[in-house]
Amino acid sequence: MSSFDLESYLRTQVERVESLLRSRSEEQGTHVPARLLESMRYSLLAGGKRLRPVLCLAFGEAVLRQSQVSRVVEDCACALEYIHTYSLIHDDLPAMDDDDMRRGRPTNHKVYGEAMAILAGDALLTDAFALVAGGAEPVRGMLCRELAVGSGSVGMVGGQVLDIAEDRPARIDYLTRMHRLKTGALIRAACRMGVIAAGGDADALARADTYGEAVGLAFQIADDVLDVTGDAASMGKAVGADAAAGRFTFPAVLGLEESKQLAARKVAEAIAAVQPLEPRDGPLAALARYSVERRS
Amino acid sequence: MSSFDLESYLRTQVERVESLLRSRSEEQGTHVPARLLESMRYSLLAGGKRLRPVLCLAFGEAVLRQSQVSRVVEDCACALEYIHTYSLIHDDLPAMDDDDMRRGRPTNHKVYGEAMAILAGDALLTDAFALVAGGAEPVRGMLCRELAVGSGSVGMVGGQVLDIAEDRPARIDYLTRMHRLKTGALIRAACRMGVIAAGGDADALARADTYGEAVGLAFQIADDVLDVTGDAASMGKAVGADAAAGRFTFPAVLGLEESKQLAARKVAEAIAAVQPLEPRDGPLAALARYSVERRS
Repeated sequence: MSSFDLESYLRTQVERVESLLRSRSEEQGTHVPARLLESMRYSLLAGGKRLRPVLCLAFGEAVLRQSQVSRVVEDCACALEYIHTYSLIHDDLPAMDDDDMRRGRPTNHKVYGEAMAILAGDALLTDAFALVAGGAEPVRGMLCRELAVGSGSVGMVGGQVLDIAEDRPARIDYLTRMHRLKTGALIRAACRMGVIAAGGDADALARADTYGEAVGLAFQIADDVLDVTGDAASMGKAVGADAAAGRFTFPAVLGLEESKQLAARKVAEAIAAVQPLEPRDGPLAALARYSVERRS
Repeated sequence: MSSFDLESYLRTQVERVESLLRSRSEEQGTHVPARLLESMRYSLLAGGKRLRPVLCLAFGEAVLRQSQVSRVVEDCACALEYIHTYSLIHDDLPAMDDDDMRRGRPTNHKVYGEAMAILAGDALLTDAFALVAGGAEPVRGMLCRELAVGSGSVGMVGGQVLDIAEDRPARIDYLTRMHRLKTGALIRAACRMGVIAAGGDADALARADTYGEAVGLAFQIADDVLDVTGDAASMGKAVGADAAAGRFTFPAVLGLEESKQLAARKVAEAIAAVQPLEPRDGPLAALARYSVERRS
């Protein structure tokens, strides 16, 4: 077992992300119509694991070998959560998953109406790029590309389309491709952006890539497993919903045990990849384990 | 009157934009799920005035003093149309304007369903940034910022929110602010991005800014005027729709004549701003006139 104090690390990092999200959305919000800003911040500041920004910061810190990172890394961390938040708002819409609750609160469209929820999502998506591009450092262009590739038609949105397709084959290759795009691509982008923003070299970038790909998949498998084994209180939403909706999940396709084993193999792959980047039992290894060992 | 052959210029430039949009969306589309790509291209390649890309190219050409522009300028031109197209797809959704027809064809959600229309919009919006950031030139970061500011919460999306607000005051200041954001900000970004992508100086940028601001407003006033005076055949949609829906328009707030005069003043302002950038009666002056003299 790890001797790294993940709980305390996560508490510190999540607080840091919360504080960054509050201040960046306030700075950006000066000339934003009040109701739009309110709707954006309702979902942006609703808590959550903040996994993507935490991974981005962790890779930035690993490259710099210190917890102090540049404003560029911080902007990327926030932008990743803007993108994740917009995707949740749009996924919850009546035309998509039609969810009423998210993180124990009414979903954005339940509070602000569908039109505003669509627009708040569009604004968060667009403003994410304003954040990443919001400075003169030459690296910001490359970071915008990473974010766009991870979240656009060849990334997150593409995966969402594979998920809503009516003729989805219940096969492991389709399921894996779907999740590689739907959640994996943005998690991978988070890791890569942390390295790039901190000025890491090609070797560090390749390691972040392997780690992000593996953790992204492990995280999704764990999500599916939690939907079978978790309880509603820690999840903040109804459990068993995926299975009830007839959605195809890793446990449904592979069985529960084999799903857990696949997730464990991915975690081991991720940890091996980042070993040269941090001291033994550092935050990256701990975060990889956390991606499957969490309870929500 | 102008001696510049705008009709022939527009034919050439619009053909050029169509060809760029076809090739860029094909290049980008290699790994995109087929149905998503089809839905994106259905709306992207549905014709239209292509005003934003044409303005971007025209400013690029004015700065470079030749019709050959760099790939960066072309990428920006395409990205602007990606953004404009996504905004039309989302505006047409049942939760927004609930329109069935656009450019003489069924709207995206009528053909592909609401969920796919939301996602096609999200993908076009995100991929626009992949286009602008899709190369190593250091200027691409700054261009992403221009695009994000023009289209996000302090630009286009912010304007859309002002437009759907229930408590809109029927006052010229609110109407002007709304349009400055809703259509003006992206048109202004188009002009600015053409200058920046072509390596123009601060003076050229300030002129593009004044021009874009004025043309954006003139264009919108002309839209409102056309809704009163135009005919359905050249508009490709029902006319009188704005007035019927009780929307507040420039003719409704200022009267028809005063609206036309305001548009004419804005056109004159725009033409004066760009005089040093092009020979007498060049494309920029002609495009400014076209923004109000068009029939659709």
